Amino acid sequence: MLASLEPWLHPVLIVLALLAIGFAILNFGAVKRILIGRPMRTRELYAQHTKLLWYVALPVLAADLYSSVAYGPEAGMTELAGLGDSAKWLILPITAATVSLLVILITSYIMGIMAYPDGGGAYAIAKDNFRRPWASLVAASALLVDYVLTVAVSVSAGIQAVSSAYPQVIPYETTLSILCILIILLVNLRGVAESASIFAWPTILFMISMMTLIFAGFVNEAHHGFHQAVTPPLGVLPAGLTLLLALKAFSSASSALTGIETISNSVPVFREPHQKNAIKAYIGLGVITGITLLGFAWHLYVQGISVNPNNTMLSQLAGLYFGHGVVYQVIIWSTFIVLILAANSTFTGFPQLAALVAADGFLPRALTIRGDRLGYSNGMLVLAALASLLIEVFHAETNALIPLYAIGVFLSFTVAQAGLVRRWLRLRQGIWPVKLAINAVGAGVTALVAIIFAVTKFTDGAWIVIVVLPLLVALSAAVHRHYEQIGRELAIDLAEERPETHSVISIVLVSGVHRVVLNTLSFAQSIHTNVIAVYVGFDEESIERMKKQWEAWGSPCKLYTLKSEYRSLLRPLSLFIGTLERIEGGPDRVHVIVPQFIPRRWWHNALHNQTALLIRLWLMRNRDVVVTTVPYHLHQ
Amino acid sequence: MLASLEPWLHPVLIVLALLAIGFAILNFGAVKRILIGRPMRTRELYAQHTKLLWYVALPVLAADLYSSVAYGPEAGMTELAGLGDSAKWLILPITAATVSLLVILITSYIMGIMAYPDGGGAYAIAKDNFRRPWASLVAASALLVDYVLTVAVSVSAGIQAVSSAYPQVIPYETTLSILCILIILLVNLRGVAESASIFAWPTILFMISMMTLIFAGFVNEAHHGFHQAVTPPLGVLPAGLTLLLALKAFSSASSALTGIETISNSVPVFREPHQKNAIKAYIGLGVITGITLLGFAWHLYVQGISVNPNNTMLSQLAGLYFGHGVVYQVIIWSTFIVLILAANSTFTGFPQLAALVAADGFLPRALTIRGDRLGYSNGMLVLAALASLLIEVFHAETNALIPLYAIGVFLSFTVAQAGLVRRWLRLRQGIWPVKLAINAVGAGVTALVAIIFAVTKFTDGAWIVIVVLPLLVALSAAVHRHYEQIGRELAIDLAEERPETHSVISIVLVSGVHRVVLNTLSFAQSIHTNVIAVYVGFDEESIERMKKQWEAWGSPCKLYTLKSEYRSLLRPLSLFIGTLERIEGGPDRVHVIVPQFIPRRWWHNALHNQTALLIRLWLMRNRDVVVTTVPYHLHQ
Repeated sequence: MLASLEPWLHPVLIVLALLAIGFAILNFGAVKRILIGRPMRTRELYAQHTKLLWYVALPVLAADLYSSVAYGPEAGMTELAGLGDSAKWLILPITAATVSLLVILITSYIMGIMAYPDGGGAYAIAKDNFRRPWASLVAASALLVDYVLTVAVSVSAGIQAVSSAYPQVIPYETTLSILCILIILLVNLRGVAESASIFAWPTILFMISMMTLIFAGFVNEAHHGFHQAVTPPLGVLPAGLTLLLALKAFSSASSALTGIETISNSVPVFREPHQKNAIKAYIGLGVITGITLLGFAWHLYVQGISVNPNNTMLSQLAGLYFGHGVVYQVIIWSTFIVLILAANSTFTGFPQLAALVAADGFLPRALTIRGDRLGYSNGMLVLAALASLLIEVFHAETNALIPLYAIGVFLSFTVAQAGLVRRWLRLRQGIWPVKLAINAVGAGVTALVAIIFAVTKFTDGAWIVIVVLPLLVALSAAVHRHYEQIGRELAIDLAEERPETHSVISIVLVSGVHRVVLNTLSFAQSIHTNVIAVYVGFDEESIERMKKQWEAWGSPCKLYTLKSEYRSLLRPLSLFIGTLERIEGGPDRVHVIVPQFIPRRWWHNALHNQTALLIRLWLMRNRDVVVTTVPYHLHQ
Repeated sequence: MLASLEPWLHPVLIVLALLAIGFAILNFGAVKRILIGRPMRTRELYAQHTKLLWYVALPVLAADLYSSVAYGPEAGMTELAGLGDSAKWLILPITAATVSLLVILITSYIMGIMAYPDGGGAYAIAKDNFRRPWASLVAASALLVDYVLTVAVSVSAGIQAVSSAYPQVIPYETTLSILCILIILLVNLRGVAESASIFAWPTILFMISMMTLIFAGFVNEAHHGFHQAVTPPLGVLPAGLTLLLALKAFSSASSALTGIETISNSVPVFREPHQKNAIKAYIGLGVITGITLLGFAWHLYVQGISVNPNNTMLSQLAGLYFGHGVVYQVIIWSTFIVLILAANSTFTGFPQLAALVAADGFLPRALTIRGDRLGYSNGMLVLAALASLLIEVFHAETNALIPLYAIGVFLSFTVAQAGLVRRWLRLRQGIWPVKLAINAVGAGVTALVAIIFAVTKFTDGAWIVIVVLPLLVALSAAVHRHYEQIGRELAIDLAEERPETHSVISIVLVSGVHRVVLNTLSFAQSIHTNVIAVYVGFDEESIERMKKQWEAWGSPCKLYTLKSEYRSLLRPLSLFIGTLERIEGGPDRVHVIVPQFIPRRWWHNALHNQTALLIRLWLMRNRDVVVTTVPYHLHQ
């Protein structure tokens, strides 16, 4: 089935799938209940989860950062692939630089935890320390963009891990990646917070796999030496290596550090004392990640592994040590699962941040609404749609997505660190000069990395992010202005302004004399206003026929007939209303009553002109009239 | 720009283009006026066109049939291309068979004109002669399907003619074909009936081109002999030729006869005597088409022209005789224009037939509505969308579309001829046995061709049509049943059933105390019903706050507060309404009044939860309550 799919069908399928899901969710209670589960009461939100020990929380929160080792080093080496074998040894200094950055970041984040024990994301820190909102908006926009990219990159890398083991999957990488996103979306719409600690196991398995791989590497090297036949020469600068290229490779490799902020956002899930335990987890995770990166890079160097778009370096190395047996399969599948978990955790982060920003009035309020299962379902839908779009556009190629990635992360790191710097300068308590120094270094380094990213990857796709970010910030500011203006406009003086009674004329639109009109007139006569009926005819005969029928019916109220030369109801009706409004001593308020057919099955609507709907929409937008719809539920 | 387009972007572009057009037409009066022109009065429809002399009407109505010679013979030879050069001579017997069919069809249609001087399409003839509607529905469905295919095939063949001369166009055939359809759609939405006789000139030019080509062929053969070095041997049955293959080739070639019904649908445009002049035009067109087919096929045989998907046979022959200079260009471009005209004429035929069938209650009534320019614009939109879809799916390959084509034409021919047979049997006037014989032969032959088409092309795509046709017929029947049932349900007894007054309770939904609520309450208190206010809160605090504010405002009416544990307005509101309806001695009618924000710019709607809209939609479908929307037009 998949084999016969034309490539242009993919986006059509995505759109259809998303529409089907959206439609199912909106329309069919039963489907919704099966897919999403029973609706949950608001108070269920506050049922507290059990607090986690730091060594349990560590793997639970590690997927985001630790999974990045599966693509980070490879992304760095991809930049240097054009220089040939003599550039392979550069993986060592690049990884060393990445690990140094890791140390700086973790130290800075520990400062953040000490300052904000309730967990402060970059947005909260920036909001707390900068008076003007633009800093927090930059942080929020950067994070939102990068959350989308995290999903796209992690899922693509996960599918690429699988297709390294099963090359027959390669043609379907895009389709499968999008399918993964849809499944993650569904799981998150259901809500999975109850079972968070089961997320520890795949990450632990992946950590053990990586450690086994590194151990196997050393065993191999103990037998065959640290310099083997395939090991590239060390220390010779390859021809063609420029500073720009080296920086590009370093910035790509530092995508291995994305996800480092997760622990600092989740301080409250740790057992008391929160902060101390979170710091322990940070140090533990930093040590494990650092060892993994260095060990992995070392073996890649010794074995002289090359970049191959159809076989990841991790898969090549594992194949070399273990063949393609059980151990290899465990490594591949644990890589896949941990990358999917990283994408999954983003489905909590993105909607929460979007809701936070929306609650401050900088994004549409719809993002603050909790769905049936208490998650911010609108934010999840937006995230899934945007990530699917990115995957489709970049054909699920991890290395094509990397240039867009990480700018946002490092930009938001910078804003958060700068916020902390301002905080220490303001509070000046305890060992503030040390904290200040750490965060100032952190801010400087992350700003530098963000700039390196933006400059070196500009033409590779980073320009997209550099264009999107200011647009997002400007849009947020515009949204906020709009909400503020409306708030002012709607405020009333409780003591002075009270409801007043107006004189109302009710116009009943009639299309003939039949049961729907009968039903509508009955309602109109029940509300005790001045009622008139209006008939719009397209030709003289139909108008005459209507007049006769009305008389035969005993003229329940005065009938006005209007002729429409242009076969549109709106124009004559609008002119008629205008005339009524201008009459001296006429009504204060015009009230249009429209009969509406409700067919028994929704698809029967296609068979009935949606006149009532169109009239209502048009009148609402273009005239200040009240519109009442009187339903008539068809039995057929 | 086009060169960098990914193939999967094509359908996206189509959808975007159609959406943009639809949106422009619906939303922006100014754009609509520019694209479509001023709206026209209904009476302008009846301003009679000048009647045409038969030799003027002939080219005006010829585009449909005559343009088919550009692809018919080639479609036949494509089936035999696999047999090699020794099959090339078969173009002669196949074309001879096609021309015999042409003679039979024209004779039969002349009978039709004599019976229905006002112009009788297959649908009208079937409706008049078969008591049960299924025959006319078969004819109508077959014609509608084939109208869609006419557009797809003609436009594809037109673009293929151009890409034969300009091979650089080949990669963009699909995109350009769809662009052509959109342009034809726009032209037809504007309406072009005023200038119909200018359509004669391109067809005349194309006829002259074809005649020149045939003449040039004979000049060439006068110089180089009727049997040239490239002429394939005559009369040897090629190895691998089966009866099935021969029938396939014949049925494909007979796609050259599609469009033959146009004159019989347009008898009233001829000068008096209508019928006599229409018959003259039929005979004239038949002679010209027959000569063209035979002459063209003869030269193709003599020159041993092969089928080449990137260079039409017509283009090859023209290039052979005239090089690639001015004459060649005239032939290519007149072919293109006449094929586009054939597609264009379908934009009159399809919507008219759809409107006729819809007026009889077999298709949605929206198809009977005349647009601003008096054309049936809904039908035109449907036709353009379906034809674009076909072109996209079949990549604008004429020969891939041919197997779907012509079944419908020959099926509707059969129904029409069979209808005439019944008519002669019923009336038994004048030379009825002769007429009967002619139409019986016509019915038999066209039925045979339709069956040959269906059987031989079944696996090539004809099955699609064979599946779609019965579905369309069944759908039409279901639509008719629906309309009939509703008509019965809505009928009332004028003498007995009159409007009655009910007791009404009006529920005003309030979300706080602000200007929108003030505005809404003012209206509610003006219609003199029992008014209560309802507030739905998600938690206790918001409910308490609302109660206090209401009191501070002097309680304009009784306020009920409902708590929603599931963060949905609908559930508690629905329960509340249910309770009201069940109260002993309670109101007869529940009336819900919803305030609605109308932002100044439509895209501001994204910033406001469309609560009013959702409530209205849900209540309308699920409960028998009247819903009133009181607009508040924001100044911001």
